[in-house]
Amino acid sequence: MPTITSVDVADVRFPTSLTADGSDAMNKDGDHSAVYVALTTDGTDAQGRPLAGYGITFTIGRGNDLVTEAARQLAQSLVGVDVAAMAVDMGGTYMSFTTDSQMRWLGPEKGVVHLALSAVMNAAWDLAGRHVGKPVWRMLAEMTPEQLVDVADLRYLADALTREQALEILRAAEPGKAARIAELEATGYPCYTTAAGWLGYSDEKMVRLIHEQEKLGLTHVKLKVGSDIEEDVRRCRLARETIGPDRTLMIDANQVWDVPTAIEWVGRLAEFNPLWIEEPTSPDDILGHRKVRDAVAPIGVATGEHCHNRVMFKQFMEAGAMDFCQLDAGRLASINEIVAVLLLAARFDVPVCPHAGGVGLCEMVQHASMLDFVAISGTREGRLTEYVDHLHEHFEQPVRVANGAYQVTGEPGYNTEMKAASIAEFRYPDGAYWSGATTTAAGEPVPAGAAAV
Amino acid sequence: MPTITSVDVADVRFPTSLTADGSDAMNKDGDHSAVYVALTTDGTDAQGRPLAGYGITFTIGRGNDLVTEAARQLAQSLVGVDVAAMAVDMGGTYMSFTTDSQMRWLGPEKGVVHLALSAVMNAAWDLAGRHVGKPVWRMLAEMTPEQLVDVADLRYLADALTREQALEILRAAEPGKAARIAELEATGYPCYTTAAGWLGYSDEKMVRLIHEQEKLGLTHVKLKVGSDIEEDVRRCRLARETIGPDRTLMIDANQVWDVPTAIEWVGRLAEFNPLWIEEPTSPDDILGHRKVRDAVAPIGVATGEHCHNRVMFKQFMEAGAMDFCQLDAGRLASINEIVAVLLLAARFDVPVCPHAGGVGLCEMVQHASMLDFVAISGTREGRLTEYVDHLHEHFEQPVRVANGAYQVTGEPGYNTEMKAASIAEFRYPDGAYWSGATTTAAGEPVPAGAAAV
Repeated sequence: MPTITSVDVADVRFPTSLTADGSDAMNKDGDHSAVYVALTTDGTDAQGRPLAGYGITFTIGRGNDLVTEAARQLAQSLVGVDVAAMAVDMGGTYMSFTTDSQMRWLGPEKGVVHLALSAVMNAAWDLAGRHVGKPVWRMLAEMTPEQLVDVADLRYLADALTREQALEILRAAEPGKAARIAELEATGYPCYTTAAGWLGYSDEKMVRLIHEQEKLGLTHVKLKVGSDIEEDVRRCRLARETIGPDRTLMIDANQVWDVPTAIEWVGRLAEFNPLWIEEPTSPDDILGHRKVRDAVAPIGVATGEHCHNRVMFKQFMEAGAMDFCQLDAGRLASINEIVAVLLLAARFDVPVCPHAGGVGLCEMVQHASMLDFVAISGTREGRLTEYVDHLHEHFEQPVRVANGAYQVTGEPGYNTEMKAASIAEFRYPDGAYWSGATTTAAGEPVPAGAAAV
Repeated sequence: MPTITSVDVADVRFPTSLTADGSDAMNKDGDHSAVYVALTTDGTDAQGRPLAGYGITFTIGRGNDLVTEAARQLAQSLVGVDVAAMAVDMGGTYMSFTTDSQMRWLGPEKGVVHLALSAVMNAAWDLAGRHVGKPVWRMLAEMTPEQLVDVADLRYLADALTREQALEILRAAEPGKAARIAELEATGYPCYTTAAGWLGYSDEKMVRLIHEQEKLGLTHVKLKVGSDIEEDVRRCRLARETIGPDRTLMIDANQVWDVPTAIEWVGRLAEFNPLWIEEPTSPDDILGHRKVRDAVAPIGVATGEHCHNRVMFKQFMEAGAMDFCQLDAGRLASINEIVAVLLLAARFDVPVCPHAGGVGLCEMVQHASMLDFVAISGTREGRLTEYVDHLHEHFEQPVRVANGAYQVTGEPGYNTEMKAASIAEFRYPDGAYWSGATTTAAGEPVPAGAAAV
């Protein structure tokens, strides 16, 4: 009967601003960072290794310390918890964090405290998966409809999705589950890349990266836009010429426009036939997204990486303001809230194309997409998960992308364990890199790899 | 030419949970707390006293340290700022905080970082008011329409409120300003009280407090509801019998219901003829509030104390989801965002009835209401500012309520300076109270006064 014996939370930052990886019109100089929660137990896993759980949320630098401290405070209540009991009641474990009205006041369910809860519950899910010896997506996919609904946070959703409606969705997906798992294991879950399209990259670098990504089967291209319309026209033209007329181009403004500006700007870029405009305006602006969508159709509207909770997703979908649901595994409060959003998306027939990149987001969202295919929407049609080939070297069980798809890795847990050496180097402010101990032969600080926003 | 020389941020907590002051269906045991920002300068005010500025945001206990730390980080950029230059460019001062995309990522514009920005900018406004020797409401009311629009954060609002439309509203309110100032100075701004209706109070205490508040001219009564429908029916009946059929009753559920439950529950309480149901569901649920409003009319829907930014208010008003706008002076990022919401409210003809109570909220929101009357909506008709008679003893220039109205106090600044002795006693965790140094004669911890939520 393993028990959680201690919690450690680390503030880990990678100096990605040095290489403009991840740069866009809103976020020009992010240092991609992780709040990293480690839950230690007194037990061992099936292989006899110490049983532990690791969870992440993602930020872009300053303020990562605030989320780290919030996660440290929240996670204390897990010390002493029986892992086996927790693993069969992940809904109850999640709900235990919602009863603290003092912490709730600081959101509610948004901002620093919600990001912190995500990291803590991500660690709990990783621990649960390792305890039962299964990847998190598979642990979830093998649940009965009743068990899976009990995981989901359905509070405040009843006017759009009742428990009974959620059960109907899950029951409808029961037939064919085994076949879909087999299909997933054979072919993986399709993805696209943002790696070529950062705003800070030169034309030459963009074209070279497009061709490099093709070798991985990644044929969709997403470009960051929104700083300068003439530059955007030029870069979109170059990208479209590079990929030809038949492949898919997406554009992403990272919230820099108001509604009238979004409509005008996207109108100028429509000739390049983008599949979607991502984050055209404030992530809180449900009705504004609807106005943009009405004006720019047939170009779709994609958003969700900053959509802070399931109540917002409910409205985006109900209002017809979102063509593609880009939920984020570090922004939503872990699997419990993700399952609720996947159910909403199934109910409103909105394809889920999770946001990824950053630190550890690819590792986590592959589970959401795989679960969605196997047990919720039952389809991969019209769906693509984001992928960026950055910072995976810091993970013990990184994602594997081949043939344009995330391949099933099969390791128990949530793929969220970071390498001890990476943490020792990039822990902030006392890791070797930040304290100045890591330098190149020439004595320069060593730039690390980078990730996606 | 005074310059800001240093910043101190204190975590101040009052143990209000001991007396159930402020208790409601969601928040049963809050310790009303302030993040208290003090900006010191090398100058003096018109009376020759050291010139300084004090700002507050309000929380209910745990996590106040997170907001304190965020405010400390944000406020550093004010050190070295010239006060005279700042006071004539408060829009620019505010915007300087919006350019840090790393901190923005943690919201954006919501949660801990936004609460912290509120405290910091509230201190800047207090300092500006003291520098020019005027109360903040008056400093604002005497601005030209162009100057006042430059203060307002209109980002993301253009689809509902353009700069030109904002100017039209302000120009329309120019005539009669002097007369309204005179009227305000003579009669004050009308208010109502929540002091009698906390959920944790006995029937006897509720009735006694209703009668006590009458002596201050406070004839409206607001009750907390949402824990137990039969109890609510009983308490509403008692309150209605106490005040008679003609006076106004309001009810407040503090977000405990989903939409169908809200509609059913309010239906049961309709016989007591409440003016409004406050916070019937999640504060993020714009479309849900609209559904409740449609179902419970003519009972109005009031919300806003947890509405985290102007983009949300824009949608609440545009969607017809809000009959009464209860903006909060510690939740919105200070005057700059409040002015934007007041302009939206004028455009959509929604009466503003600010949320208050807590710690320092009454002191601040009186300025918003007075500004609204003098220079924006131009009317007090159908408007009431919340008032709770708690914790004012800790302020140097507390509100003055008489004849059912906030009376103009006239002191320069934002009325946000707390007494040094209060901070010394309730600073957390090292103040005399929390470190155990303050006890009653019997050796018990001393319960402090309390406030409104």
